[in-house]
Amino acid sequence: MSTAPRPTAATGVLYLVPTPLDFGVDGSLPLSGWLPDATLQVASRLTHWITENAKSTRAFLKRVDAVHPLTSPLQSLLIAELPRAAHKKGDHLPDAALDRAARELLEPALQGHDMGLVSEAGMPAVADPGSAVVRAAHAMGLTVMPLVGPVSLMLALAASGLNGQQFAFVGYVPQDASERSQRLRALEGTALKLQQAQLLIETPYRNAALLAALVQTLQPGTRLAVAAGLGLPQQAIRSAPVAAWRQHPQWAAALPLSLPAVFMLGG
Amino acid sequence: MSTAPRPTAATGVLYLVPTPLDFGVDGSLPLSGWLPDATLQVASRLTHWITENAKSTRAFLKRVDAVHPLTSPLQSLLIAELPRAAHKKGDHLPDAALDRAARELLEPALQGHDMGLVSEAGMPAVADPGSAVVRAAHAMGLTVMPLVGPVSLMLALAASGLNGQQFAFVGYVPQDASERSQRLRALEGTALKLQQAQLLIETPYRNAALLAALVQTLQPGTRLAVAAGLGLPQQAIRSAPVAAWRQHPQWAAALPLSLPAVFMLGG
Repeated sequence: MSTAPRPTAATGVLYLVPTPLDFGVDGSLPLSGWLPDATLQVASRLTHWITENAKSTRAFLKRVDAVHPLTSPLQSLLIAELPRAAHKKGDHLPDAALDRAARELLEPALQGHDMGLVSEAGMPAVADPGSAVVRAAHAMGLTVMPLVGPVSLMLALAASGLNGQQFAFVGYVPQDASERSQRLRALEGTALKLQQAQLLIETPYRNAALLAALVQTLQPGTRLAVAAGLGLPQQAIRSAPVAAWRQHPQWAAALPLSLPAVFMLGG
Repeated sequence: MSTAPRPTAATGVLYLVPTPLDFGVDGSLPLSGWLPDATLQVASRLTHWITENAKSTRAFLKRVDAVHPLTSPLQSLLIAELPRAAHKKGDHLPDAALDRAARELLEPALQGHDMGLVSEAGMPAVADPGSAVVRAAHAMGLTVMPLVGPVSLMLALAASGLNGQQFAFVGYVPQDASERSQRLRALEGTALKLQQAQLLIETPYRNAALLAALVQTLQPGTRLAVAAGLGLPQQAIRSAPVAAWRQHPQWAAALPLSLPAVFMLGG
C-alpha cells in the first residue's frame, strides 16, 4: 500500500439523467422520442449510478445500450440505491443522516468518476427524490449537470393553456374526502388570487376519485385541465372550465386515468 | 369554384415544439444536445407555424433542416406571429380579442393542417407566451401535443437541490429596490412556511442586481441557487445557504450573469 498522497485527480461530474415516462407502462417506445442524443450518449458512458431502484435503472440502460452501446458491460456498472429516507416525502428536508448517506453515495465522484442520478421516470429531483444528493454534490464542490429530457409537469402545463408565467406544483392532496375538498378550495383560492396555475398529482389508482372531486368542488368558471399518459399512445389532454366538465361527464370517463396524470387548475 | 361542401377532413394537431436555449447567444450548438429525434422529425414536416418571432423560427428551422431535411422548402412555410397582446404578461388572462386572434391563427388546423407553436427558447407557453393559443385550440376541439425538449426552469430546479416536490415559478420581481426587497422577503416567507421552492427570472442585464439583492435580503440560513447559461458551454450552477454566498462574493462575480439565468430560494 502506498502512503503517498493520492494524486489530485479532477473530481467527477454529477449528471442528472432524465428517463422516459413509460416506466411500468410500456417500455417499448423508442428512446429517440424521449431523450436527445446527447443525453443518451452521456448515459451510455457512465459507470456509476445513483437511483431510486437499481432494477429499473438496469432496464433503462439496456434500452440505452440498444441505441448507444454502453462503454462498460451492464453487469460491471455500479448502481447504488438512494436510502429509503430519500424516497417520496421528506427528501428536501435538511437531515444529517440523509446528508451523510448522500455524501457516501457520491464518494466515487471525489475519486474522479462521473456519476448519473436517475429516478423512475422523468427528471430526477423534480416531483421525485434525489434533491438530497444534489445538495450534497454542491456541498462537496462537484459540478452538477442537468440533461434534457421529459418533465411530465411541464409537458402538461404547456398543453393545458393555463398560466405558464406563474404556476405552482403542490404535489399530493389529502385522501380524506372532506380534507381533500378543503385543500382543493384553498388551491383554487390561491390560483385565482395570485393568477398562479396550481399543478397536482395523485397515485394513479386514485386519479379518478381526484378528478371527480375537482369537478365537484371547484367553481364553474375555474379552468380545469388533465393530462394523462403523457408521451404514451394513450395520451389524452383535456382543458376546459369546470362548468363544461360538469356538462360532459363522458370527458372524465374517456381519460386513461389508470396512467400517471397531472391535474391543473387556474383562472 | 366548386360549391360542393368541403370534404370533412380530420382536423390538424397543434404541436408544442420546444426550441434550444441558445437563442441570441450561440446558435451553433448541435440540436442533438437539445431535442429528441422525434421532436426534430415533427418539426421537419410541419408547414404551418405560430411563433413569437418569425425570423428566429426560420433560423431554428434552418438548423432542423440540417438534421432532418424539411418536407417543404423553408420559403414555402407559413409562419404567423402571435399578436402583440399575447407577448409577455397578460397572455394568460381571458381576453376576447386575444382569443379571436388565437382562433384565427389556428384556422389552418381546422382545414387539416398540423401546426407548430414555438417560442424564442425552451417550451412554448411555459415562462413564455402561447397559452392563449393553447386555450383556443382546446376550445376548437383540436388535439394538443406537447413535445419533449429543454425547459430551463426544470433543468435549474433539478440542479439546485431545492425542493422539487413543492415549488412555484413566480416570474419577475419589481425593479424598484425597495419593492424588490419587500417582494423577496415575501417569497422567502412563502418558501419557508410552505416548504415550497420559489423560482424567479429576470432580464439578463438586471441579473447581477437581482442576485446582489437576494444575497443581501434573504436570511443567512435560506438556500439560494442560481443557474446561468443552462445548456451552454458557459453554464454555471451554484447552490448554497445565503451565509455562504455572503462569505464568498467571488461566487456571484464568477457566474455568467449576462446570460439567461434562473434564481431559486428555499428552506
